[in-house]
Amino acid sequence: MTQAMTQAGTQAGAPGGWVAVAGLGPGSAALITPEVTAALAAATDVVGYSPYVARVAPRAGLTLHPSDNRVEMDRARHALDMARAGGRVVVVSSGDPGVFAMAAALFEALEAEPADRRGTEIRVLPGITAMLAAAARAGAPLGHDFCAINLSDNLKPWSLIERRLRLAAQADFAMAFYNPRSRSRPDGFARTLAVLKDACGDARPVIFARNVSLPDETIRVVPLTQATPDMADMRTVVLVGSSRTRIIARDGAPIVYTPRSVLP
Amino acid sequence: MTQAMTQAGTQAGAPGGWVAVAGLGPGSAALITPEVTAALAAATDVVGYSPYVARVAPRAGLTLHPSDNRVEMDRARHALDMARAGGRVVVVSSGDPGVFAMAAALFEALEAEPADRRGTEIRVLPGITAMLAAAARAGAPLGHDFCAINLSDNLKPWSLIERRLRLAAQADFAMAFYNPRSRSRPDGFARTLAVLKDACGDARPVIFARNVSLPDETIRVVPLTQATPDMADMRTVVLVGSSRTRIIARDGAPIVYTPRSVLP
Repeated sequence: MTQAMTQAGTQAGAPGGWVAVAGLGPGSAALITPEVTAALAAATDVVGYSPYVARVAPRAGLTLHPSDNRVEMDRARHALDMARAGGRVVVVSSGDPGVFAMAAALFEALEAEPADRRGTEIRVLPGITAMLAAAARAGAPLGHDFCAINLSDNLKPWSLIERRLRLAAQADFAMAFYNPRSRSRPDGFARTLAVLKDACGDARPVIFARNVSLPDETIRVVPLTQATPDMADMRTVVLVGSSRTRIIARDGAPIVYTPRSVLP
Repeated sequence: MTQAMTQAGTQAGAPGGWVAVAGLGPGSAALITPEVTAALAAATDVVGYSPYVARVAPRAGLTLHPSDNRVEMDRARHALDMARAGGRVVVVSSGDPGVFAMAAALFEALEAEPADRRGTEIRVLPGITAMLAAAARAGAPLGHDFCAINLSDNLKPWSLIERRLRLAAQADFAMAFYNPRSRSRPDGFARTLAVLKDACGDARPVIFARNVSLPDETIRVVPLTQATPDMADMRTVVLVGSSRTRIIARDGAPIVYTPRSVLP
């Protein structure tokens, strides 16, 4: 397993074909990296969940392949197949593709292939992930050690989520929660808040950041004791401070930040 | 504390003056967001640690204020003072300014001011943080729940770092380590590896990512049992897989990824 490598993506695949798994950031075009913009300009095909594909401008020579949620493996196989046929394929994710998004799905699909079909050129192009965009709007709540947890229990048991919440509270991490609540999972976030209220003891600040960087962005800061499940939906990322997180009150919006030091 | 806000930065400060705490990403210009580029184009002053300020192109009307490491609070006060005098000041950080960087330092400085001096307009502009750039190069090692820990014990006791490492291992988080090793802290990373070898049991993949996105980037993947302290320095971010993290062997560099699902 000891190997040096310069870039995961420089392998030879089918002649000319490649897959780039690209992060579009939280929503604003001002948060898309030039690297991702260049990949989209070079692409023949764009694959992804419909709302993310809709963020890519149509142009001659580019085929858009929007698909439904929860078909990540089909989408990944489709992207790999098109690249093997010579396509230059961008798989788009919101935020960063490596954080609860399409990069892992693509590698799951690749690993399931026979070894002699794994040579496809694949690059992962990072993006501004939701928790960091949300943290920036609120101040610097993730300025000290923190963790990121996907609250969807579609792919892991609730018992594991609860265990991680309790250990994260013991570690006094600030926490970022992705996918807090959806129509098909209306109850998990209520359980999350109950565990946190039990495990964290005091009134941590909780940040509900919805549609970050878009025109209808809202950032809401409440103490944990006042946080309620209806404050989150699938467009919300939730941040919870550590025991050290502070609020600076001033005219207008408060600033939430976690100091760098825990020394007395 | 319950308040809705649209953006942390839209407060009125001194006439015309503002501070933007901006993330320059890991090194490549292709990973700097248009939002940060626009802030630098509008700035009168750029403040930061010398190697980061050196990444900003000089131009007429822009004063560069490089400073030494470990003077974060002086730098933050300087930025606030210039903004109050009408300056448009960009404080530059590598990576994302909210992750072990200047945003928290700026808010520490702001909080220490008298309440009537806290009105300065401040925006935090997110960037591509080192762990996500490194993860993208290696595959998708942070594709499931993970944590980020600053291994510097300048601002926290080693005992807290060790406690967090052990709890993170119990939670089976993938882990990202910033500031693993420096000349002034030669021994902490050896202790970190010893704790991980004790707490994680089996041979997790460890990724040493140095100078990510720069021409001399190196990505090295080794099993935890073969990881040694000299593999890291201050230009390295270290990622450690969870118990579920997988390696896809293929010609050239291996791919490291953590599957989305932990279901059987």
